[in-house]
Amino acid sequence: MYNLLSGLSVIETSSFVASPTAGLYCAQMGAEVIRVDHKEGGLDYDRYMLTEAGRSLSWENLNRAKKSVALDLRSGEGRELLVELAATTGNLITNLPEKSFLSHGAVAARQPDGAPDLVSVRIMGWHDGRQAMDFTVNAASGYPLMCGPEDWDMANAPPVNQVLPAWDFITGAYCAFALLAALRHRDATGEGNEVRVPLGDVAIGTMANSGALAEMLYRGADRERLGNAIWGAFGRDFRSRDGVRFMVAALTPKQWDGLVAAFGLGDAITALEGELGVRFADGDGPRFENRHRLFDLFQDAAANADWADLSARLAAQGTTFERYRTMHEAASDPELVTNNPLFGPAPANPSGFDYPATRSFANMPGRDVGNPAPAPYLGQHTEEVLANRLGLSSGAIGTLVDRGIARLSDKE
Amino acid sequence: MYNLLSGLSVIETSSFVASPTAGLYCAQMGAEVIRVDHKEGGLDYDRYMLTEAGRSLSWENLNRAKKSVALDLRSGEGRELLVELAATTGNLITNLPEKSFLSHGAVAARQPDGAPDLVSVRIMGWHDGRQAMDFTVNAASGYPLMCGPEDWDMANAPPVNQVLPAWDFITGAYCAFALLAALRHRDATGEGNEVRVPLGDVAIGTMANSGALAEMLYRGADRERLGNAIWGAFGRDFRSRDGVRFMVAALTPKQWDGLVAAFGLGDAITALEGELGVRFADGDGPRFENRHRLFDLFQDAAANADWADLSARLAAQGTTFERYRTMHEAASDPELVTNNPLFGPAPANPSGFDYPATRSFANMPGRDVGNPAPAPYLGQHTEEVLANRLGLSSGAIGTLVDRGIARLSDKE
Repeated sequence: MYNLLSGLSVIETSSFVASPTAGLYCAQMGAEVIRVDHKEGGLDYDRYMLTEAGRSLSWENLNRAKKSVALDLRSGEGRELLVELAATTGNLITNLPEKSFLSHGAVAARQPDGAPDLVSVRIMGWHDGRQAMDFTVNAASGYPLMCGPEDWDMANAPPVNQVLPAWDFITGAYCAFALLAALRHRDATGEGNEVRVPLGDVAIGTMANSGALAEMLYRGADRERLGNAIWGAFGRDFRSRDGVRFMVAALTPKQWDGLVAAFGLGDAITALEGELGVRFADGDGPRFENRHRLFDLFQDAAANADWADLSARLAAQGTTFERYRTMHEAASDPELVTNNPLFGPAPANPSGFDYPATRSFANMPGRDVGNPAPAPYLGQHTEEVLANRLGLSSGAIGTLVDRGIARLSDKE
Repeated sequence: MYNLLSGLSVIETSSFVASPTAGLYCAQMGAEVIRVDHKEGGLDYDRYMLTEAGRSLSWENLNRAKKSVALDLRSGEGRELLVELAATTGNLITNLPEKSFLSHGAVAARQPDGAPDLVSVRIMGWHDGRQAMDFTVNAASGYPLMCGPEDWDMANAPPVNQVLPAWDFITGAYCAFALLAALRHRDATGEGNEVRVPLGDVAIGTMANSGALAEMLYRGADRERLGNAIWGAFGRDFRSRDGVRFMVAALTPKQWDGLVAAFGLGDAITALEGELGVRFADGDGPRFENRHRLFDLFQDAAANADWADLSARLAAQGTTFERYRTMHEAASDPELVTNNPLFGPAPANPSGFDYPATRSFANMPGRDVGNPAPAPYLGQHTEEVLANRLGLSSGAIGTLVDRGIARLSDKE
């Protein structure tokens, strides 16, 4: 954990993936992120995978380094406490609907008279208020009908959903950015802001930002199916003689030259250039347009070499390539995990299960990186936060606990 | 364009997707983002799709609302100008290698004596300096071997690459966040920072943050293939009688009840509950574990209804569902694009092609949203930026242009 955001406190009322991710990134940069949940846990508290004791491995990774406050959010009193926490803290990340008790207006109305400066970031489904999730915005975006084998019939190919909830993770990172942008503006002007980020807009807007919306309109039709090939450049998966699948990509002249050398294809490429009347070194265009001829050459070469030999040659030529791992392989891969400084030692996870824990994606030479912190137990910081943020006495907090409005740690 | 980041200037030396995206998000929030490229264009200047006149629709969408400076970055003099621009501006986003002329140290060394406060955000491949791209880190992450039809043989299933460069877009958003985090720290302390964000760490770290790394280690094996089903909850794609494919998801009790009602499956579900001895309303667990039985019931119901009828019932029940579009359909869909305030009118794009242009993903009620700005022509702002940032006279700039060190707009 770095301390770039130390001094910043954020109330997060979240579920699922996008919203917790926004808080996670802030917490890993040193912010105090206080997740406030319903006392039985939010909608994501028992998301798969669960350990035998019923602890969610999803929850304990998406909520690392945060504090937890547990309140009865079905009661008016619990909701009032959350609104007051958000108002006094002044910074809120949530995916509750704008029409809920935790609207920007409701929170800002509880800030000091005449000086509401709340910054709230609200993750929505669609921009018009309709519900959406990663899976459904993905269906709308067009991507699932473009994925999958090249030889699937274009008109009848089934969609291929992505296992990675990419829209959630893009949205989470974007919301962390939007929060800091609004805070920067408040620092400069004193003004608060209501920031709404619809998951659906992130999906369709990313499709557009990538150039694909313009592309489809310019074509007046869908793009041809590419299978695992890279659009507009040279790259695809290949398989070595001993059955190892790997991806190669060449987007620069240097990468292309390296690939040709590593595969030992200099003469074959020269011959093909003569036959086709092109020069593949000229750029992405000729390599992409003639990709099927090139893919055949590369696959033939791959099928005549074992991975140990081929990967050594690819590395020696400085090419960009990678072996496909199953996720179980990836999870304990030395290069990816066990020897990677992104990961630190297992902290005291709520599940009791020990495994490498992530630090922030950003690394900063010369700054103390520290060790990853665990997720909290549900309600672990209820007492501390109600006392420090709202000035409640231990007697008052005890009464809230006795009455079921607040809950302390679910550790036992 | 919003003005949350007005007053902030950033030098961006970028190529491909992640790094330009970080600058794009800042520019759409009102920052002055000055992209400095080699005078013939960076490695991404002719990325597909190209118009007939050779303009990249990818480039003009990823660089919207930025300024462009074009220098001979193969010459020492051009490189010196870029280093000086980054030093005087104090804020840098780049994907050039740390060992290049644009290292953090080289730029900071050109800042005022004794007060280097540079904030640089550098996108890397792998953390150890090896090259990587979206396609290759994806291969390592394990996701491509989990995607694709459920009935593919687990041991021999081919990888399915994602057409969406998800790791690039997550990295881009994260880098915009990391930049603002480091700026917040500098505002508070005066300290600059070098921030490195490896694309590979974003991939493997996201896999871990989602809980999947812990899951694989806890299982001691890979997850079973799920096809298009949602992991740990109820959801999959179905097909109506008239051939419309759509995705449904139910993660909450309310969503589940709505789905059952919309599909008219109340009695069938009750009967299945009796047979299996479970209550599907109890949570994700029983719905996920018995998903194949449920999927059969839902697909049978879908196959007996046309989409117009079924979608009306799904909407009336407030369920979360979405029709799969091809990307060409999505690109001119009224709900997604033409009637969506995310999109504004076509600005004067370098390509001359008119199409809806994205605003920032974030929308802020009560703030002026403005209209989307176009990408610059290459070098369009060379003169303005060299004059304003480095104080060069028009005569000095003219000499740089004459000598081929600087280039003005490539408009003609």
